[in-house]
Order: sequence, then C-alpha cells, then structure tokens
Amino acid sequence: MSEADAPSDFHKTITDLGGAALADRLRFVTEIDKLKGILRQTPLLDRSRKENDAEHSWHLAMMACVLADYAASEVDMLRVIRMLLIHDIVEIDAGDTFLYDTSAAAEAQEEKEQAAADRIFGLLPEAQAKEFRTLWDEFEAHESADAQFARAMDRTQPFLHNFLTEGMMWQQHGVQADQVRKRMTVIADGSPALHDLVQSLIDEAETRGYFGTA
Amino acid sequence: MSEADAPSDFHKTITDLGGAALADRLRFVTEIDKLKGILRQTPLLDRSRKENDAEHSWHLAMMACVLADYAASEVDMLRVIRMLLIHDIVEIDAGDTFLYDTSAAAEAQEEKEQAAADRIFGLLPEAQAKEFRTLWDEFEAHESADAQFARAMDRTQPFLHNFLTEGMMWQQHGVQADQVRKRMTVIADGSPALHDLVQSLIDEAETRGYFGTA
Ligand SMILES: [Ca+2]
Repeated sequence: MSEADAPSDFHKTITDLGGAALADRLRFVTEIDKLKGILRQTPLLDRSRKENDAEHSWHLAMMACVLADYAASEVDMLRVIRMLLIHDIVEIDAGDTFLYDTSAAAEAQEEKEQAAADRIFGLLPEAQAKEFRTLWDEFEAHESADAQFARAMDRTQPFLHNFLTEGMMWQQHGVQADQVRKRMTVIADGSPALHDLVQSLIDEAETRGYFGTA
Repeated sequence: MSEADAPSDFHKTITDLGGAALADRLRFVTEIDKLKGILRQTPLLDRSRKENDAEHSWHLAMMACVLADYAASEVDMLRVIRMLLIHDIVEIDAGDTFLYDTSAAAEAQEEKEQAAADRIFGLLPEAQAKEFRTLWDEFEAHESADAQFARAMDRTQPFLHNFLTEGMMWQQHGVQADQVRKRMTVIADGSPALHDLVQSLIDEAETRGYFGTA
C-alpha cells in the first residue's frame, strides 16, 4: 500500500482525476476536520469529557434553529447558522481561549485568529473565501442583529453546560457569580427572553453553591 | 452542594424561574448533547479516534455550504443545512448502523429510528416538533432535490475519510471496491460533478490497494 495522501497530495490527486474545480473546496473540507480536535473548557452534560469546537458549532446551530422565535429582532436564519458553523474555525490554528481568561495570551488571541482566518478561509476559491471571511468578521464585530443572536447562542450554551454540571468549570477555574453575570449581559442584545432566564439561572446557581471562590 | 438537575428537574427549574415558554426548547437542546457520544464507523483524518454524530453533522453542513454550486438542481440551502444538522439525531436512541451492514439489525433500524424521532422531536413544542419531523422524513425519503443534495454530502464525507486514511474502515470491515461503487451511485442524484470525482477516486483507491478483501 502506498503512503496516505498529504493535504497537498490530495489536492493534486483530485486535480489529476479531472476534479480541479472541486480541489480547493475539498482541500478546505478536509482541513476543517481538525476542528474536531480543538477542545474547549466546556464539559459534555454527561461529564465524560470536554467538548470540541466542531460539535460545539453543531450544537449552537441547532440552538439557533430551536430558539429563532426568541431573537431580539428579525434575523436571517441562513446567515446566523452559517456564522455559527464557521465561527470557531480559526481556532484550528489559534486554539481556544477560556471566556474568563484575562491574561496577555487572551489579548494576543485576536492577532492569531486574524492570521488563521487568512490561512484557512484562504484555502477556498477567492469569492467563497471572501464570503466566509466577511461572515466571520461580522460575527466577531457583534453589531448586526444576526451576529448578536449568534453570540447569544455562543454564550448561552456553555452557561447551560456549567449549570447542569453543578458549575464544574466555574469551580475548577474559580469563576464567581458576578463575573458570569457580567459576561452574560450581551445575551440581551440577541435575545431578551433568553437573557432574563440566564440571569435567573445565575441567581439559582449561586443559591445552590455552583460558583467558585476567589 | 445539591444534586445536579436531572432533565425533568431542569425543565421544572426553568418553569419555576418564569421561563415556561423556553422550557421545552431547552429540554430538547440539552437532550441532543447526547449525539456527541454516538460514535460512527468513520475515523477522523488524523486517525486518532472515531468520529461522533454531532461533529459529523457539523462537517456535512459545512460541506453543503462549500459545495452548493455543485448541486444537481437549485436547492434551498437553509433547508439542506437544517436537514443535515438533524439527520442523525434519532441515533441518540437508535445508534449508528454501518453503511455496509446487511444484517437483520440493519433492517430493524428503521423501526427504532421512527420511535426515536417520535420521542426526541416530541420534546419540542408541537409546531416545531412537526417541522423537524417533516424535514427528517424528507431526508429519509431522499426524493426532493434538497434531500438528494444532503444525502450526497452524507455519502461523500465518510468516503473521503476512508480514502484519506488508506481505507482504514474498508480494510477493517472487508469492504470491496464494487460495494463502495454501488453505494456511491446515489451521489449523482444530488451532485453529478461530485459523483464523477468520487467514482474516479474509487478507481484510484483500488489501484492503491485501499479496499478490503472478501
Ligand atoms: Ca447515519
């Protein structure tokens, strides 16, 4: 048996087989498989392991479908879902940063993510690369209604996982109730109803002793 | 610290906190976390482990975005993506069946999946449950253009993973070239260009000795 195709070999194999038009796209499709290996600081609900970015992105897209009626204003669901599907792809190169991390590493993250966006979206044909990059920039800017609803999903899901695992990561990282309250305020921009519920769940979590101590 | 909320407790907690309208939806959102624990017979490209259904669903939705221009006929991308996001959710109860499995277990699978669809989509408010069920039924029937394109993604992705891991699962399960050729013909319904490429890649895989022996 011959050696497995390296990424660049696979691009050549496809081109040699007459699939040149598809080669860039499939090179991107195989590259993003790496997102399944980027672990987050969120436990699965069964506490068996940490969640990875690919399954997280799927979960957020599902949440957006299910919670669309609770968006703050009218949103374009196809744009919201596409935004959520791609929002963490840059972490293939840049890695995940914990939401409550305030170190210099977290500040350097933006630069790394910009370079990652250039490289990874840049694997696609130019028009498509630009489309994905624009969508990702919009998510990062969190100014449009679509981006704000998408971000509400991205904040709510890890919160729910922490609540339902008795503050597993809050305990581990010494995260306190007021830090979470502050971080979760942006949910209001995307979904006031969800924001109200999350703030009530924070109070409930505090009563139950789910948070860490300083 | 008190006990963690069981699923039914969480529904009650949300309702008690004034979030009754959201309780069914968030119950569903937490239930589908289990999809991350359903393993498939597809290796990740780095061969580190088997893929799970949640990250697989994300990957297919991404492929649909990237390959939309190669659909056999005009497709509604929002419907295609939603179909792909939910298409394996029934496997939370029914488990995954290997594509080349011809045992009685595979035949019993459909019945199990119907019951799973009743239970899991049934957690949602009625209108939404019906919407998801209709979409899943449409995917399973593979008659509409949207469903055929979605299925082309579902067949192509594991194929690519097998090709790029030198037929890891083909070898392990003794899957032969002609079985794969036959299984991949349906890709033509959703994307003729992708089908042509996949058939050429099967020839190439055969030359390289990636397939199993009977
Ligand atoms: Ca399946």
